[in-house]
Amino acid sequence: MPQFDVMTFGETMLRLSPPSHGRIENTDTLDCRTGGSESNTAVALARLGRRVTWWSRLPNNSLGRKVSGQLNRWGVDTSKVIWSDEGRLGLYFVEFGSPPRPTIVTYDRTNSAVSYLKPDDVDWAILSDAAHLHVTGITCALSPNCAETVLHAVKEAKSRGLSVSFDVNYRSKLWSAKRCRDTISRMMPYVDLLFCPMGDADNVFGIKDSPGLVARRLQGQLRVDTVVVTGSSDHVAAVQGRDLLRSDIVRCREVDRVGAGDAGDAGIIHGFLDGDLQKGLKYGSAMAALKQTIPGDELIVSKAEIEAVVNGGSSGIQR
Amino acid sequence: MPQFDVMTFGETMLRLSPPSHGRIENTDTLDCRTGGSESNTAVALARLGRRVTWWSRLPNNSLGRKVSGQLNRWGVDTSKVIWSDEGRLGLYFVEFGSPPRPTIVTYDRTNSAVSYLKPDDVDWAILSDAAHLHVTGITCALSPNCAETVLHAVKEAKSRGLSVSFDVNYRSKLWSAKRCRDTISRMMPYVDLLFCPMGDADNVFGIKDSPGLVARRLQGQLRVDTVVVTGSSDHVAAVQGRDLLRSDIVRCREVDRVGAGDAGDAGIIHGFLDGDLQKGLKYGSAMAALKQTIPGDELIVSKAEIEAVVNGGSSGIQR
Amino acid sequence: MPQFDVMTFGETMLRLSPPSHGRIENTDTLDCRTGGSESNTAVALARLGRRVTWWSRLPNNSLGRKVSGQLNRWGVDTSKVIWSDEGRLGLYFVEFGSPPRPTIVTYDRTNSAVSYLKPDDVDWAILSDAAHLHVTGITCALSPNCAETVLHAVKEAKSRGLSVSFDVNYRSKLWSAKRCRDTISRMMPYVDLLFCPMGDADNVFGIKDSPGLVARRLQGQLRVDTVVVTGSSDHVAAVQGRDLLRSDIVRCREVDRVGAGDAGDAGIIHGFLDGDLQKGLKYGSAMAALKQTIPGDELIVSKAEIEAVVNGGSSGIQR
Amino acid sequence: MPQFDVMTFGETMLRLSPPSHGRIENTDTLDCRTGGSESNTAVALARLGRRVTWWSRLPNNSLGRKVSGQLNRWGVDTSKVIWSDEGRLGLYFVEFGSPPRPTIVTYDRTNSAVSYLKPDDVDWAILSDAAHLHVTGITCALSPNCAETVLHAVKEAKSRGLSVSFDVNYRSKLWSAKRCRDTISRMMPYVDLLFCPMGDADNVFGIKDSPGLVARRLQGQLRVDTVVVTGSSDHVAAVQGRDLLRSDIVRCREVDRVGAGDAGDAGIIHGFLDGDLQKGLKYGSAMAALKQTIPGDELIVSKAEIEAVVNGGSSGIQR
Amino acid sequence: MPQFDVMTFGETMLRLSPPSHGRIENTDTLDCRTGGSESNTAVALARLGRRVTWWSRLPNNSLGRKVSGQLNRWGVDTSKVIWSDEGRLGLYFVEFGSPPRPTIVTYDRTNSAVSYLKPDDVDWAILSDAAHLHVTGITCALSPNCAETVLHAVKEAKSRGLSVSFDVNYRSKLWSAKRCRDTISRMMPYVDLLFCPMGDADNVFGIKDSPGLVARRLQGQLRVDTVVVTGSSDHVAAVQGRDLLRSDIVRCREVDRVGAGDAGDAGIIHGFLDGDLQKGLKYGSAMAALKQTIPGDELIVSKAEIEAVVNGGSSGIQR
Amino acid sequence: MPQFDVMTFGETMLRLSPPSHGRIENTDTLDCRTGGSESNTAVALARLGRRVTWWSRLPNNSLGRKVSGQLNRWGVDTSKVIWSDEGRLGLYFVEFGSPPRPTIVTYDRTNSAVSYLKPDDVDWAILSDAAHLHVTGITCALSPNCAETVLHAVKEAKSRGLSVSFDVNYRSKLWSAKRCRDTISRMMPYVDLLFCPMGDADNVFGIKDSPGLVARRLQGQLRVDTVVVTGSSDHVAAVQGRDLLRSDIVRCREVDRVGAGDAGDAGIIHGFLDGDLQKGLKYGSAMAALKQTIPGDELIVSKAEIEAVVNGGSSGIQR
Repeated sequence: MPQFDVMTFGETMLRLSPPSHGRIENTDTLDCRTGGSESNTAVALARLGRRVTWWSRLPNNSLGRKVSGQLNRWGVDTSKVIWSDEGRLGLYFVEFGSPPRPTIVTYDRTNSAVSYLKPDDVDWAILSDAAHLHVTGITCALSPNCAETVLHAVKEAKSRGLSVSFDVNYRSKLWSAKRCRDTISRMMPYVDLLFCPMGDADNVFGIKDSPGLVARRLQGQLRVDTVVVTGSSDHVAAVQGRDLLRSDIVRCREVDRVGAGDAGDAGIIHGFLDGDLQKGLKYGSAMAALKQTIPGDELIVSKAEIEAVVNGGSSGIQR
Repeated sequence: MPQFDVMTFGETMLRLSPPSHGRIENTDTLDCRTGGSESNTAVALARLGRRVTWWSRLPNNSLGRKVSGQLNRWGVDTSKVIWSDEGRLGLYFVEFGSPPRPTIVTYDRTNSAVSYLKPDDVDWAILSDAAHLHVTGITCALSPNCAETVLHAVKEAKSRGLSVSFDVNYRSKLWSAKRCRDTISRMMPYVDLLFCPMGDADNVFGIKDSPGLVARRLQGQLRVDTVVVTGSSDHVAAVQGRDLLRSDIVRCREVDRVGAGDAGDAGIIHGFLDGDLQKGLKYGSAMAALKQTIPGDELIVSKAEIEAVVNGGSSGIQR
Repeated sequence: MPQFDVMTFGETMLRLSPPSHGRIENTDTLDCRTGGSESNTAVALARLGRRVTWWSRLPNNSLGRKVSGQLNRWGVDTSKVIWSDEGRLGLYFVEFGSPPRPTIVTYDRTNSAVSYLKPDDVDWAILSDAAHLHVTGITCALSPNCAETVLHAVKEAKSRGLSVSFDVNYRSKLWSAKRCRDTISRMMPYVDLLFCPMGDADNVFGIKDSPGLVARRLQGQLRVDTVVVTGSSDHVAAVQGRDLLRSDIVRCREVDRVGAGDAGDAGIIHGFLDGDLQKGLKYGSAMAALKQTIPGDELIVSKAEIEAVVNGGSSGIQR
Repeated sequence: MPQFDVMTFGETMLRLSPPSHGRIENTDTLDCRTGGSESNTAVALARLGRRVTWWSRLPNNSLGRKVSGQLNRWGVDTSKVIWSDEGRLGLYFVEFGSPPRPTIVTYDRTNSAVSYLKPDDVDWAILSDAAHLHVTGITCALSPNCAETVLHAVKEAKSRGLSVSFDVNYRSKLWSAKRCRDTISRMMPYVDLLFCPMGDADNVFGIKDSPGLVARRLQGQLRVDTVVVTGSSDHVAAVQGRDLLRSDIVRCREVDRVGAGDAGDAGIIHGFLDGDLQKGLKYGSAMAALKQTIPGDELIVSKAEIEAVVNGGSSGIQR
Repeated sequence: MPQFDVMTFGETMLRLSPPSHGRIENTDTLDCRTGGSESNTAVALARLGRRVTWWSRLPNNSLGRKVSGQLNRWGVDTSKVIWSDEGRLGLYFVEFGSPPRPTIVTYDRTNSAVSYLKPDDVDWAILSDAAHLHVTGITCALSPNCAETVLHAVKEAKSRGLSVSFDVNYRSKLWSAKRCRDTISRMMPYVDLLFCPMGDADNVFGIKDSPGLVARRLQGQLRVDTVVVTGSSDHVAAVQGRDLLRSDIVRCREVDRVGAGDAGDAGIIHGFLDGDLQKGLKYGSAMAALKQTIPGDELIVSKAEIEAVVNGGSSGIQR
Repeated sequence: MPQFDVMTFGETMLRLSPPSHGRIENTDTLDCRTGGSESNTAVALARLGRRVTWWSRLPNNSLGRKVSGQLNRWGVDTSKVIWSDEGRLGLYFVEFGSPPRPTIVTYDRTNSAVSYLKPDDVDWAILSDAAHLHVTGITCALSPNCAETVLHAVKEAKSRGLSVSFDVNYRSKLWSAKRCRDTISRMMPYVDLLFCPMGDADNVFGIKDSPGLVARRLQGQLRVDTVVVTGSSDHVAAVQGRDLLRSDIVRCREVDRVGAGDAGDAGIIHGFLDGDLQKGLKYGSAMAALKQTIPGDELIVSKAEIEAVVNGGSSGIQR
């Protein structure tokens, strides 16, 4: 049995946000956390008891150590991180909105250490330490080198017998829809489980329909066995081979929505790895809802707390 | 006329909570307040202008002094506190949730100074300084000694002519429903006014019905003249002798729900002492709602602010 | 072309508020910002790209400098401020409520430097530097001298060819409705654009009706060409000559409602100055809603953010 | 035996200070505490176990209640406070310096409720509830009415058999040295124990000498039996009748020096009341030093902590 | 080669401290960190690049997870922790003093999960995963069971070929000097490297002399090959066999002295493991000084920062 | 008379620092201010009443607006800023040390908007709006384009009759000493007033001597009329033509030393512009000391506070 259930890699940034719905212009302090789509998913999987390793290329300074240390803190292995003297740590600013004011993410991630990552920088034998690989479209958007590295990773994973999941995670501030579509399409032959938010299906693939039909059409177009369509305000839908599954969204009162999709992916991967995608959808919905109640990108809950929501537990006071 | 309108005793703890919906695992600071069911009720009564004394057994250190000083600050006398070198100050942690995540209370109150309290430690003559005694089931749950002390207290109070109120306040993390029921039943002959939340009626006494019928059944079963059933999301109901009274819940936007029941008890006791239980129910509903809008266990409002809500005042901006 | 599109004057105070819905009685820290109706409007106009100057009489100390510096920070000129060794800086405390608890403003502004301001203290030639003058009833309420100064200002403005706007902004904690009505009535011959909140129309002028009819009746009674009636929970209405206009309220999730009306005024003045009052109403509704999502009196947003709301943009996450 | 060992009255203000050596101009939060010379001394005496009551005229609002509640919290009775609808609560701002930047107090206390206090507002029978009265020159500086009230108080105290202490506490931002000298001189016939800081002896009485000689000269000039001269960086000196006493200053590392003199006064009064002025000087030196290590005006320590310093205990870590 | 260079075990607590030199009585927030002598040493060793594992018996709740996660964050393995449903997490409060006010540690660690630890609870084979074992007297003080467990550990370690270090770390608030001496003496036959602070030598063993002579006398009395005497304000001294070594204390400006001794131990163990005790003393002095400049028990620095101090680098600004 | 006394340009960054001597690795919040050598000097000059304008190339987003707004707040004009969609806002992190731990600046300023600035981007006619130009070596270090722009600026300034000052401000983390020397040497023919810290004289020009002799040697080598040598712990020295001047360092208790040199430059420029360099040295010493007592890069004091230190005022408490 490999050492880790899941390996993932990508960019994890310092996340800086004005407290209490403030603006960058009128704050004197910033809450300082860490976040990145893949490590968010890694943390959520670790909370479920999965053995998870995340890696990236990190600058060899206090900022890089902060990212690595935080992930260790939440239960994720970082022993495979590539430490570098080149490049900086990516940052992102979040200003939390309130309707009608949107929540605004301002990326400051150009020239990050990981953006220079090339396939040759990686000792691909590390893939053999894991049973499953999870990657996302965001990493592909960072640089052509990064896109090549992701492609290399999914090929290597496939050839070493790992299952592979991929989240489209289109970020319009990082690249164009066309480049996203072209790049991702090359990965699909090696992917077993594809996540695609409703909005990305529309923006990147021009598919606008009910979640189930979006999943079916993506399955046909991209030839991936299992496709999960998230991001609907009503339910999450999946196709797996000929099966069609769905699970209702779990309602929540939002505290911090960033990372909800990543937490949801973790729940779905958890079920997928157990060969029970329906369970995955239920866990994913519960975890995406729970994430939105917690400040920070990461799902800092116990497995028992997740299962209480999966089982429809009360949100009253427990004492 | 005795020096105090109301005397109460019980355990008041340091309350530690991560700010801004954070988790214990991911916070570096804790808000530090004080709280305990009986002292919460004492503070709320003091806010109404009632002369109130609260006592307990407190450790003779800065933590004990903090509790006593805070209660003085909110208007409650603590001159009857028993200072002790034995035992610690109980603590409790609260992680504020947001649906579907519950608010979680983690007690850390074993071996508290008050848990060692025995009837003989108390100079029961102090009861003569008050017109009314209020106690709750929580104190009974702390230790067998404590349960004996509460029993002793209600007997002594009765014999000295005080009226007595008692809130079931069942805490499943502290004791079993059976022990709660058995213990409380012994107190009932000395109680004039019983508070029982809907959930406790079900869990402890196996009674599940509308608030009014729950009150009537508890009245019959426990032979207490006045029974108030709280904790419904619709209305509070009471029986007093043959009368049945009710008052609508006052809707609120929740900031911190801890202590809402205790504040409600205070309003009801206030009316009860004036011989006007209907008024008590109205005050109780207003005060329970107001409490939920204020951070901390205690109801830090003025009497005028309470009466504005009782009279249906606007919640707009006042300037 | 004059140097400034808009000039305004009035009292700007230090604003002190307990964080996180706390009370003055139970807080150990106060958030410390600045705010005043006229400068709030000035800031919002500056955010739209308008060139704006605000002045007042400020104490020549660190508190006065703080007010001036903050307004500079948000884009408002303060070169015309009259610095004084007489009087103090006005303060106000805000305790943010949550239904049923109202938000409470406690003024502490007696004997402020500006309350001693007399018409002779001002070099009225400064009015020639602006195309429009905006004032409010609050300044009139500060002292008889201040009321005279406002009257002098609107007369001077009119005679120098500026257009003039006036917001009734009745504050019952500062003066009586009768004094407000008598004082304001004297200003009206010099006013082109009158703002009147629904509640003020009722309290000050005894007019209670739909927003449109209130506007029409005020127009007739006060003989002002353009009257905008704000403060309805449904829509804002305006009459301009014979025209009747309206714009729906923009719904929001409230973070801090103080200053919403002032931000709305700015949007309306913006349209008014462009000769397009209908646009003004739309901007005003958007800006009043946006203000409520931002901590502090002032509307710290970009013009693009305002226009996104005017155009019905999404309040989701932008990344 | 009277109910209280010591009664004192004066003005207690809200104290607002930027955290971490910040300036008013560049802070967004203010630490919010309470402080006033007489109540500072009252708190320090309560910490020594003395029964103390403080009174003033407080505005009947949340700010006034905050002051009263804080003093209750620290162990001082406030049952004799006169609640008023006239006047405001005085404030003061402190910007903590660091050499060469001085610590700057900016008073904002004009028109405070207590500044309107007249002798007739007080039921002087309350003096009979105490054995000793302590007042200071600051209260005399607030208004001519206040000066009359202090004069009335010391006369009444004398006639009712209380001992009386008085601290010159000259504040050049409140009044002139001449007015201070003239006013204080009228009080001296009724004073048993006079505190005079070195600087005040120079500024108010034109006496510049060693502490002991300053004390002797003040004794001769003002005809007070016991004079304590504080504020030297070396030692505190006292004359009592023909005796001359002194005690070395206790060295400290300063955290917040405000209130050090008031804490010192408390120690000296404590010894004076026990008929042991030498002990008072030792306690005073220890308490003045301790106060400077604690944020806030008030000496929040236990009696045991004071005695450890009196006895020369270590300032290392205790565990 | 074993997996870990150093294994250690003991109790790590939640550490709660009022910010900015405040007192427990007058603070509304507590800084919330973690700390314990053995884990502090573990963190400091990890910072030097040593592979370190720490274990204890932790309660299976969010508080226990917080401790484990924090240590992971700083680079310490916790895979050998024994998770338990019995007992609580120990806490300690620190009030940071300033001369003449001492820093006060208030322990609240009775009935902690680890205090129930017995030798049989441990799978002693884990010792084979490490080359060195470090323990301290504090753990022995927690309970007789704990003392037995420590004794068992050093015996097992010795028999498995590990080197063993032991820090007396006498805590007078936890046990008597006599019990400490008796207990520790039983451990000494299995100890290679003994740390003894000057004060402990005096209090526990009645030895008061220069650091070098204290070390020599302890060596003779306890028959330990290597003895290091810390806690002098001038230098640290060691005897190793017949050698006598010393290293000057590195001067520092104190921010938070808690954990300085533990960090110093780490430096000394580091040298000891390299067979270069003199280097260890230099590293220990540097690390003890550095620790005092960092808030929290743990030495959060890089190895390069430690070596800069060892090499006498400047403490100016680096940019 | 030109509109501004002084123009300056350079890079101003967001400054992020852990509060209370924390480390980046162990903080959850960052204090968020702004700072840059040239704008720091600009703010300090504005505090002296000088009319100052600062410009740069700023990104057209909330971070850029924050920088501009902050400078407006402190009294500096930013109307000449070039707003850009290219490049990011530079950041820098500061971890405040305490001996022996150094204060560490971590720059994160690559690819900033200003680093792309070329001479052709600037409308050099703006120089005619000022009487004096101040620049520093840091801007030259940002990029070759920037170095060209600075060279262009000093030439243009000279040709338009402005006086020019230049601070070497060598930053070893940005470029090599050789590149610094070569670049700066080309600027010197256009410079009237050169600032050179002692360390830079050594590192960049290989001159190590007393401040006065360093100044004389630099004057000879670089052929600048007036050279001021700062950064000695004893005194600042200057040569002006044949004159040699000096002024003692003003001692301070450090709170935040960043920006001290920039504040000192402002004082010296102030005197230089008045034709009184000796006065400049005195002001510079006072201002450099004062800056170190204030959190943040900028000298937020009043002119009166500066003059009090120049005149040797007390650093006691002022009330």
